[in-house]
Amino acid sequence: MNAINRQVRLANRPEGMPQDSDWQITEEPVPTPGEGELVVAASLVSLDPAMRGWIREGKSYIEPVEVGAVMRAIGLGKVVASNNPRFEVGEMVSGMTGIQQYCLTDGKGWQKIDPSLAPLPTYLSCLGMPGMTAYFGLLDVGLPKEGDVVVVSAASGAVGSVVGQIAKIKGCTTVGIAGGEAKCKYVKEVLGYDEVIDYKSEKMEEALKRTCPKGMDIYFDNVGGEMLDACLGRLRMGARIVVCGAISQYNKPKEEIYAPKNYLSLLVNRARMEGMVVLDYAKRYRDAAMEMGGWMMQGKLKTREHIDEGIENFPASLRKLFTGENFGKLILKVDA
Amino acid sequence: MNAINRQVRLANRPEGMPQDSDWQITEEPVPTPGEGELVVAASLVSLDPAMRGWIREGKSYIEPVEVGAVMRAIGLGKVVASNNPRFEVGEMVSGMTGIQQYCLTDGKGWQKIDPSLAPLPTYLSCLGMPGMTAYFGLLDVGLPKEGDVVVVSAASGAVGSVVGQIAKIKGCTTVGIAGGEAKCKYVKEVLGYDEVIDYKSEKMEEALKRTCPKGMDIYFDNVGGEMLDACLGRLRMGARIVVCGAISQYNKPKEEIYAPKNYLSLLVNRARMEGMVVLDYAKRYRDAAMEMGGWMMQGKLKTREHIDEGIENFPASLRKLFTGENFGKLILKVDA
Repeated sequence: MNAINRQVRLANRPEGMPQDSDWQITEEPVPTPGEGELVVAASLVSLDPAMRGWIREGKSYIEPVEVGAVMRAIGLGKVVASNNPRFEVGEMVSGMTGIQQYCLTDGKGWQKIDPSLAPLPTYLSCLGMPGMTAYFGLLDVGLPKEGDVVVVSAASGAVGSVVGQIAKIKGCTTVGIAGGEAKCKYVKEVLGYDEVIDYKSEKMEEALKRTCPKGMDIYFDNVGGEMLDACLGRLRMGARIVVCGAISQYNKPKEEIYAPKNYLSLLVNRARMEGMVVLDYAKRYRDAAMEMGGWMMQGKLKTREHIDEGIENFPASLRKLFTGENFGKLILKVDA
Repeated sequence: MNAINRQVRLANRPEGMPQDSDWQITEEPVPTPGEGELVVAASLVSLDPAMRGWIREGKSYIEPVEVGAVMRAIGLGKVVASNNPRFEVGEMVSGMTGIQQYCLTDGKGWQKIDPSLAPLPTYLSCLGMPGMTAYFGLLDVGLPKEGDVVVVSAASGAVGSVVGQIAKIKGCTTVGIAGGEAKCKYVKEVLGYDEVIDYKSEKMEEALKRTCPKGMDIYFDNVGGEMLDACLGRLRMGARIVVCGAISQYNKPKEEIYAPKNYLSLLVNRARMEGMVVLDYAKRYRDAAMEMGGWMMQGKLKTREHIDEGIENFPASLRKLFTGENFGKLILKVDA
């Protein structure tokens, strides 16, 4: 192959919001697979809030991306060359592509996907990491019971949209928090949340009083900050807070982190706040995908993707996650 | 009876540290028991951090003490008059005496105690609420496993002293946090903690690095504030924080509450922070007391009380809890 592999590399560790200058677009020849290796032509890559953590210095739940390295990303594409007996040229596969057009891999941790069963982008949303995060975060950490009041922040987002729908399937009353009229309409009318809060136009404390007059049993937190604090203030006895993310805080230096002043509500209400990382559930992804695929077929689980195009647009596209500009799971189309 | 019943009543809702002027000492005739009632001559009353919450406006896990009412307290004493078939004159009993010398009650929630089995003050410490709090907080919420590293704040206190000893019985490595040389010596030499941190002379972050080089599995928090934050920064995978109290924060107005900035450590470490209130375990108190009594007999569980004298000294004695002046379970002797 004489084709060129365009890649996005980390140029600097950003302070605050990652800027264009924190990234470098490089080109190199498409690699040739060695013994046991294959090359995947990436088509779609997933842009996720977790990326902000991956480019921070120091180990978090995963090693940081080094300066100069191709940016880490989950993606999917077609096998274009293979010396690996598990994979054949032409098959569609999903794995850690990185932000690049061609990915060389030994195939470990990669899965085949079937484009005839579900639309390709679904494999990066509902049937991918965000869907898995929602599924295990809600069911294994949140432990919903029929009749529970479940509040979800970033309710129109990749994770939140799935959390709310699974909570409804489990017989809960759902309250979604989203920003702006269009997203709120989507949350209520398409995703089927019982109540919706527009955090851009309502005061959180009052909106929570309106939508959860008796308090909440589960808060699934993707946002952190003031929103978490307001929810802490309205917990019911024995409530569970699933700490899935804190997108409102990821770009802040440590001294500006908004800490939850209402944490003693955990004591008064015998409540629990627990962190989760989806990677811990890898052995059960397949079963979860089967169950969620079933719900999708029955029309109980809807999904929406926001697809940007062009690998060179990665820096601008990523920022949408932090400004709330994307509407649905953010995916970048990077085909060569 | 012509005797006088001296009582301590709440005069004002205090702001910050409760002052002498927030209390009023009143006298009234000793009550006469009606049908089904009894009168207890109080001897020892328990002074607890929870009292600061009871005199705050608004419902917490229990109704607030009203201004003008006798201060709520757990205590013990002798039955001096009884029209209740369950209780006989001369028996020793424990229950909600309040801060007063004679208590009229219908006997609901009261228990007989046996002074021949354990010293009387023990029934307000190890075999009373603090002991129960330690027992259920550590075992039911903290879920210790052999080899776990357990960090306890206020380790020389009524609750913390018991937590550390039970953790040792369960095969854990224990780190106690206390203030000042005398308490630290007691924590290590008498209570048998493996390591001790003097928060008055050491920087918490460094002291935690020294004593928990691999981090901690359980943090039993009686203190809150900066100490909680520092511990959040040194959690191990799957760690549990038992939120039992926050004595460093109880006298602060809401806007000055120290909120834990490091709470996202819960996410990275898949850790859990959970509140507990001992009242929820009332049905199991008897079993817990039996087990702890056994440990006391075997010399595995030691207890220490700080006994002040004179009902009129209640306001000053209570403040010791917040300045750290008491050393051991704080008890006030109120005999007429």
